[in-house]
Amino acid sequence: MKILVIGAAGMVGRKLVAAFCSRGEVGGRTISALMLVDIIAPDKPDFAGPVTTIAADLSQAGEAEALIAHRPDMIFHLAAIVSGEAEADFDKGYRVNLDGTRLLFDAIRLARKPYFPKLVFTSSIAVFGEPLPDVIGDTQHLTPLTSYGTQKAICELLLADYSRRGFFDGIGIRLPTIVIRPGKPNKAASGFYSSILREPLVGQEAVLPVEESVRHWFASPRAAVGFLLRAAELDTAPLGQIRTLTMPGLSASVGEEIEALRRVAGAKAVKLIRREPDATVAKIVAGWPGNFDASRARALGFAAETSFDEIIRVHIEDELEGRLPELS
Amino acid sequence: MKILVIGAAGMVGRKLVAAFCSRGEVGGRTISALMLVDIIAPDKPDFAGPVTTIAADLSQAGEAEALIAHRPDMIFHLAAIVSGEAEADFDKGYRVNLDGTRLLFDAIRLARKPYFPKLVFTSSIAVFGEPLPDVIGDTQHLTPLTSYGTQKAICELLLADYSRRGFFDGIGIRLPTIVIRPGKPNKAASGFYSSILREPLVGQEAVLPVEESVRHWFASPRAAVGFLLRAAELDTAPLGQIRTLTMPGLSASVGEEIEALRRVAGAKAVKLIRREPDATVAKIVAGWPGNFDASRARALGFAAETSFDEIIRVHIEDELEGRLPELS
Repeated sequence: MKILVIGAAGMVGRKLVAAFCSRGEVGGRTISALMLVDIIAPDKPDFAGPVTTIAADLSQAGEAEALIAHRPDMIFHLAAIVSGEAEADFDKGYRVNLDGTRLLFDAIRLARKPYFPKLVFTSSIAVFGEPLPDVIGDTQHLTPLTSYGTQKAICELLLADYSRRGFFDGIGIRLPTIVIRPGKPNKAASGFYSSILREPLVGQEAVLPVEESVRHWFASPRAAVGFLLRAAELDTAPLGQIRTLTMPGLSASVGEEIEALRRVAGAKAVKLIRREPDATVAKIVAGWPGNFDASRARALGFAAETSFDEIIRVHIEDELEGRLPELS
Repeated sequence: MKILVIGAAGMVGRKLVAAFCSRGEVGGRTISALMLVDIIAPDKPDFAGPVTTIAADLSQAGEAEALIAHRPDMIFHLAAIVSGEAEADFDKGYRVNLDGTRLLFDAIRLARKPYFPKLVFTSSIAVFGEPLPDVIGDTQHLTPLTSYGTQKAICELLLADYSRRGFFDGIGIRLPTIVIRPGKPNKAASGFYSSILREPLVGQEAVLPVEESVRHWFASPRAAVGFLLRAAELDTAPLGQIRTLTMPGLSASVGEEIEALRRVAGAKAVKLIRREPDATVAKIVAGWPGNFDASRARALGFAAETSFDEIIRVHIEDELEGRLPELS
């Protein structure tokens, strides 16, 4: 089975590719070749078969056709302009997140038949916006409050229609906010959710811009890779016309997140969190969903962490080689 | 105030233009000029001011810009490829119903500033699909079962995002099935809902392809024009981010429809309905919604008929010059 990963240089993309390399199969089918695509050429992973790494912009005419000409059996479409950039640059957001996705879908639709790949698309809980219930059910209507969320919601609709028409076998998964993101602090409004754990775990200070009562919806990078693998192997027949699933996650407040840090790494780690209220960040995250039901995805075998302790332990295992530095 | 009507040659478009001509104002503002656009040039109506009639295909590059260059203050976008054709011709449906609408929205977005027109967009209850509750609420999630419904749902999302970004003041209205459509019987699956009244009212036979228990959601052409005028004058601030409203209507079974015909036109008219079960039509309409809450639109002053007797009387007044022929 040939696998195409679009967005393979991103954080989740790299971890997904690493999983392919170590497993060698998906859903019981041996992986014969990997095609890894991103806006910059992804690093070549250590895979036992042929690997192609390609720099491509899907929103440019002909790029999607060139990829689909290789007739991958399974396609992961993870690539997107992130929320902040899609809001700042209206044209770029629609061009990459909407037109790029549609060009990919159309390249598959118009490919020489027979061709019927599986397509896994990552959507986002940004498709939801206020007013929201405390626990968001699987039939919540989509009311995005950003252009990014609008673009993801539109792609969900296209995914369902193209699947219904028999052009591909599509499944969409709405990812929770992924914590703990490895790497450096960034300027994303959600950055502090990772930062207040990641930095203290290695003895560095982190800034908390919001109240401890703020609640949100989380899963680890490892869980995100698990979602993608489960989506890849899943028989989509039970999905009917509703092809996108809200993924399970952990609903937790910032206070609960900090208490988990205390349990796993001690009071010294917690002391490295510096309160620095930021009204702008507080306003943005106040509109974000805090809890989901996600029973449909759970019933289909998708699973996430059930405590923040577990999310922290996953980070220590996957990013810190299983060791916590002694905090002095 | 300059008004642009796209889809002005359609059944609802013509009636809307006739209303402009007789009223001369919308929402208390005098209409200074009418621009009427359709894929074929609309007939020139009897209007007291300047009227331009234009044949244009919005999905062709430059067409939307040329229209918006006239800087209409209010835009009605009613044009669409209908459901059956959008299903039969995938490319044409997406090109006209999605790309055409987006090109219009972008022409407004990119017009020389300051420019902030009101935009009224007609969506459809085809954005909803099974499984559906008996009474569909205003927060029902959109699960279209056709490409047409998908295109309308996507345009609703674009309308909300473009309005949120301040490019125009948009409002979408989801029309019920419009009965009694004037004119000849057509091949639309919904055609019989009009036909079993329209033909008997003038002494002609009509075919009923489904059971009398089938329930659906209706409003008259006159009510549809009323929705558009109400949308045009409405202050959109209370809509928030949810810019599209399900319009009120009448939930009625085919049996209730026939009993109304009996009350208004007598048993002889009812005898002209010939039962001819059609499994294909029955299957299509079985998936259609039967009843909506529509309380949000009702609270905002949108109103439809409350009985089929009223819908029939509207047809007799508006299409038959108020007279029923003697049925022999």
